[in-house]
Amino acid sequence: MQYAKMFLTIAVLVMVCITCGCARTEGNVQRYGCVIGVRQDRIEDYKKIHAEVWPGVLALLRECNIRNYSIYLGEVAPDQYYLFSYFEYAGDDFEKDMEKMKADPTTQKWWELCDPMQSPVPTRREGEWWHVMEEVFYTD
Amino acid sequence: MQYAKMFLTIAVLVMVCITCGCARTEGNVQRYGCVIGVRQDRIEDYKKIHAEVWPGVLALLRECNIRNYSIYLGEVAPDQYYLFSYFEYAGDDFEKDMEKMKADPTTQKWWELCDPMQSPVPTRREGEWWHVMEEVFYTD
Repeated sequence: MQYAKMFLTIAVLVMVCITCGCARTEGNVQRYGCVIGVRQDRIEDYKKIHAEVWPGVLALLRECNIRNYSIYLGEVAPDQYYLFSYFEYAGDDFEKDMEKMKADPTTQKWWELCDPMQSPVPTRREGEWWHVMEEVFYTD
Repeated sequence: MQYAKMFLTIAVLVMVCITCGCARTEGNVQRYGCVIGVRQDRIEDYKKIHAEVWPGVLALLRECNIRNYSIYLGEVAPDQYYLFSYFEYAGDDFEKDMEKMKADPTTQKWWELCDPMQSPVPTRREGEWWHVMEEVFYTD
């Protein structure tokens, strides 16, 4: 009976650990910081559509292991605007998940809407739209 | 006896929830995205000191409820570099905690080291060093 109780307690511990977010601790996620320009005349449109992103787009982000994803708008010089994104990748094959996103018709339509509002930085790597930046510091 | 078991299970659930990171879910933290320029001739110095930030600085950040703090380096145009920071504030009085940081001698010395390497954006608000950006999207 004592063993049964101990087993039950351990099982509950494991279950709760999984469901309540242990996966979001350092070591289990890869952090990404990205940057892209935004056209000044499309900022309001960009903010508007991002206040109500299509449910299909959000669902796929989650399915593709993207977590804790924010986008910030920054004016770094008069009339010079950039979008800065931060997200955490909780899966184990980033490239495969990105391919899955690229292949999704809803996400493709979403990007067709967003892309003309953005202006990729000229310093980006080949194949990049958002430019992935270098992490120079981290603490938790 | 059944009640005792139920009570034990609930107590374990609550304890595990608290210790394994439920506090880091949306609603319990405020997210911040900030930007600042970095002098091109000081980038290597900035990276070097940020690879080994003084323990006193890190300890105070934690004490002041700053969590999950990253800094990224981005070249947005040829020879035009910015630092983007993302962090989560887990306390309940951000201004008070920031005052505490400003008053700390170790942090002051650290900032004396960092400040000449940085070049604040001309579009920042009064009193800002790092410019706090607007969050335009979030999903978890």
